Amino acid sequence: MRRALPEPVTVAAIVARLGGALQGAPAVPIRALATLAGAGPDAISFLTHRRHAAAARASRAGALIVAPALADTAGTAAARILTEDPYLYFARLAQWFDTLTARARAPGVDPSATVAADAVLAPGVRVCAGAVIESGATLSDGCDVGPGCVIGAGSTLGAGTRLHANVTVYHDCEIGERCIVHSGTVIGADGFGFAPSAQGWVKIPQLGGVRIGDDVEIGSNCSIDRGALDDTVIESGCKIDNLVQVAHNVRIGAGTAIAGCVGIAGSAVIGRGCMIGGGAGIRGHIEICDGVTIMGMTLVSHSISEPGTYTGVFPMTPHAQWERTAAALKQLPQWRQTLRRLAADRTNKED
Amino acid sequence: MRRALPEPVTVAAIVARLGGALQGAPAVPIRALATLAGAGPDAISFLTHRRHAAAARASRAGALIVAPALADTAGTAAARILTEDPYLYFARLAQWFDTLTARARAPGVDPSATVAADAVLAPGVRVCAGAVIESGATLSDGCDVGPGCVIGAGSTLGAGTRLHANVTVYHDCEIGERCIVHSGTVIGADGFGFAPSAQGWVKIPQLGGVRIGDDVEIGSNCSIDRGALDDTVIESGCKIDNLVQVAHNVRIGAGTAIAGCVGIAGSAVIGRGCMIGGGAGIRGHIEICDGVTIMGMTLVSHSISEPGTYTGVFPMTPHAQWERTAAALKQLPQWRQTLRRLAADRTNKED
Amino acid sequence: MRRALPEPVTVAAIVARLGGALQGAPAVPIRALATLAGAGPDAISFLTHRRHAAAARASRAGALIVAPALADTAGTAAARILTEDPYLYFARLAQWFDTLTARARAPGVDPSATVAADAVLAPGVRVCAGAVIESGATLSDGCDVGPGCVIGAGSTLGAGTRLHANVTVYHDCEIGERCIVHSGTVIGADGFGFAPSAQGWVKIPQLGGVRIGDDVEIGSNCSIDRGALDDTVIESGCKIDNLVQVAHNVRIGAGTAIAGCVGIAGSAVIGRGCMIGGGAGIRGHIEICDGVTIMGMTLVSHSISEPGTYTGVFPMTPHAQWERTAAALKQLPQWRQTLRRLAADRTNKED
Repeated sequence: MRRALPEPVTVAAIVARLGGALQGAPAVPIRALATLAGAGPDAISFLTHRRHAAAARASRAGALIVAPALADTAGTAAARILTEDPYLYFARLAQWFDTLTARARAPGVDPSATVAADAVLAPGVRVCAGAVIESGATLSDGCDVGPGCVIGAGSTLGAGTRLHANVTVYHDCEIGERCIVHSGTVIGADGFGFAPSAQGWVKIPQLGGVRIGDDVEIGSNCSIDRGALDDTVIESGCKIDNLVQVAHNVRIGAGTAIAGCVGIAGSAVIGRGCMIGGGAGIRGHIEICDGVTIMGMTLVSHSISEPGTYTGVFPMTPHAQWERTAAALKQLPQWRQTLRRLAADRTNKED
Repeated sequence: MRRALPEPVTVAAIVARLGGALQGAPAVPIRALATLAGAGPDAISFLTHRRHAAAARASRAGALIVAPALADTAGTAAARILTEDPYLYFARLAQWFDTLTARARAPGVDPSATVAADAVLAPGVRVCAGAVIESGATLSDGCDVGPGCVIGAGSTLGAGTRLHANVTVYHDCEIGERCIVHSGTVIGADGFGFAPSAQGWVKIPQLGGVRIGDDVEIGSNCSIDRGALDDTVIESGCKIDNLVQVAHNVRIGAGTAIAGCVGIAGSAVIGRGCMIGGGAGIRGHIEICDGVTIMGMTLVSHSISEPGTYTGVFPMTPHAQWERTAAALKQLPQWRQTLRRLAADRTNKED
Repeated sequence: MRRALPEPVTVAAIVARLGGALQGAPAVPIRALATLAGAGPDAISFLTHRRHAAAARASRAGALIVAPALADTAGTAAARILTEDPYLYFARLAQWFDTLTARARAPGVDPSATVAADAVLAPGVRVCAGAVIESGATLSDGCDVGPGCVIGAGSTLGAGTRLHANVTVYHDCEIGERCIVHSGTVIGADGFGFAPSAQGWVKIPQLGGVRIGDDVEIGSNCSIDRGALDDTVIESGCKIDNLVQVAHNVRIGAGTAIAGCVGIAGSAVIGRGCMIGGGAGIRGHIEICDGVTIMGMTLVSHSISEPGTYTGVFPMTPHAQWERTAAALKQLPQWRQTLRRLAADRTNKED
């Protein structure tokens, strides 16, 4: 399913566009971007770490992107592009190849879409089949709203923002420019707020909204709730994977990356440049400072004020061994007593 | 994005409607409900706990809802409303303000909706753009079905129930009165049932349904599966957050609250008035009695017959410390031997 | 909500169709399939394990499916069907009863669907209301596309594959024959790939696709991402529950079953015939061999090369006890020192 370029480009053309130092044959024709193992002579691949050097030597790739320090590992590739950050170069090359292979997306409103009379659509907007744009919603230039999306009343999408199919945005939410939101994601549903009473839970209507900055990408099937009184805020440059829950009143600092299946409880504040591993949980009302990394499936149970990496996960073992460890774990409080007595004996003896 | 009232209401009008004892200036005009920190002189805020007393004193709120015992902390607010449960008062006030600011939702069937000829729609029902109501489905008075929703054949929605956009209800499911279901949630998909065979997994068609009581709220992107033979049952008054999995044949007792990202495996039975923390997991075929609280990200691996709070989560620490603890954890079974020998020595010595 | 057969079938007719040895009255009329507890005299039930023997004896079922070894536990049922694998028999019987009670699904394209002029629809395909089939998509014979589904450009569905309502398939994905995909699931969204740069995260367009084999069932609200360069692959016969994340470049071997809320990180490779428990996490770039069982909520942090069962989960206890254990856990590294000193003393003494 890898998309090949309709017309090949030469390695020289790649360097002319994206920079780097060219070694070897400049005219090698490139039709695809591929992994070291998957590349053929018409593909360009990349080497990001010395541990892949053997794969690079074995690769049939016609060209290789490689750091100067690893240039000797480029194997039999007819051409090499030397650059300090091959992974970033790969990203930019993939972007170019993506524009060369992507299908056209013509602006315009599909006749099966439902657009409120007072919605504001800038020129260049695309609204696909079956999408619904409610009253007072505003779509800036170049917005692309996929099939089946619903944009609630009064919500705004910044220029160049793209919603893939079946995204739901509730009323009065604000999404910035050049954002990407994947299918099934829901932005602006009510936060989970109820007051206990003698008659059961009493719903607290969620009067805030959601405010998302620029260049944010949100994966599929995420739930980003609106705030109770203030807004839920995701700052610019954040990247969020699939199936992530962002509860009401949460604030996520610029450039933070959040892997799949993470749950962030209400009113948590996450700093800038953090990385949250997959399946992690973040308790409500805590604060995490800038530059924190949370390992996967860790529960962040208290605030973190020191940058660094944090972990809390029970190590996996064969089940029989786990059973022994789990049994021992339950005895730890008693062991403490025994250890203290034994250590006290020892101290007494030494006196 | 906080919605201000189109016309202010006085503090006296609030007390006339919702009760409480008014202190200070009755004519203070209120345009919004806000947090202590976010409130201006035209907003009313609330104080729920003494630990927020400093914030209350610093607040610029024009009025404050406060318990009599904390009335001295109300700071400079021009008016105070004294009530025993400020949080519940806040909930009811938010409900009132919500009705004052919400957009009208006129009943009627959008021309782009698809409604089966034999579906039964009570007067006062609203069916939004692109929604699909299949054969024999029944919508009682005041139901509100959002854009893109699909209501399967033979399913029923009780009076006043609201489905936000893009909710899917499979066939032959039953949702009670005044329920709220948020976008992306799927009710009635097949439970995960397969019999192993020499030819691989054999699907067990799920012949049961889903039965949801009254006043249930379900968040976005939840999966509530239909039963294998009997129904999956969620009793009245339950509140379920986002991205929650309720597997086939599960029964959840009245008034239980379930936070985001919880997974409940097949045939589990949960009592009434329970609170399940975010990311928790509940193993299949177990029973949890009434009045149990499960802390976030805990795996409930066996039945619970005693009300109380239960936890099972590895404490988070800086990663280097976690590595030392994890290494020690694996040695626990050996330590047990050592400890026993040492304790035995001690006993012998004392003999 | 259990669906009764419109016309009863006799136990003899069941045995004629599905095999097994009939004991007792062959003419017992059966109208439903039910649990031991829920069955009435017109229902057939099944006994899978001796621990349910008491329930079988108490059951009012008119007929019982039972293994020969447990035939003596069949209680008062008027008829018994003896078979070595009652659970598998139950599955096949449920399939038959399902065909007898299911509503007809007539082929054809609903007028409210949007089908691209160059999409290829085999005869016998059904496309429901509001579905969108994009350019160049191919639907083989007997495909059933539910209301609100979106099939992206160039994607293909094999013969007999069914998508329930509101499924999203992105462009250039491949789904095999006789697959079932439940509502809200998203197949082919971009994998989570970004290169760090001085200007923030740079998106890596995901140029691979998703390739799903035959007879795969995927639950509701799952996220199956497309590959970065190669495809994400789910082999034939896999069964995946709800709210599961399958990240880019993952490969899942044939016949593997994955329970709800599992997260599988990028480039992980899972063998054939594995069983992954609910809420488990699988780290990126690891390999799991064939025949591995992972217990629920376990993080698979490293590759597994030995078949067997693996676990890593903190045992649940009452909260107060957990607090004591968690406190002790943090002291383990110090305890190790103490234990070593004490053990050394003992060794010295014995010398």
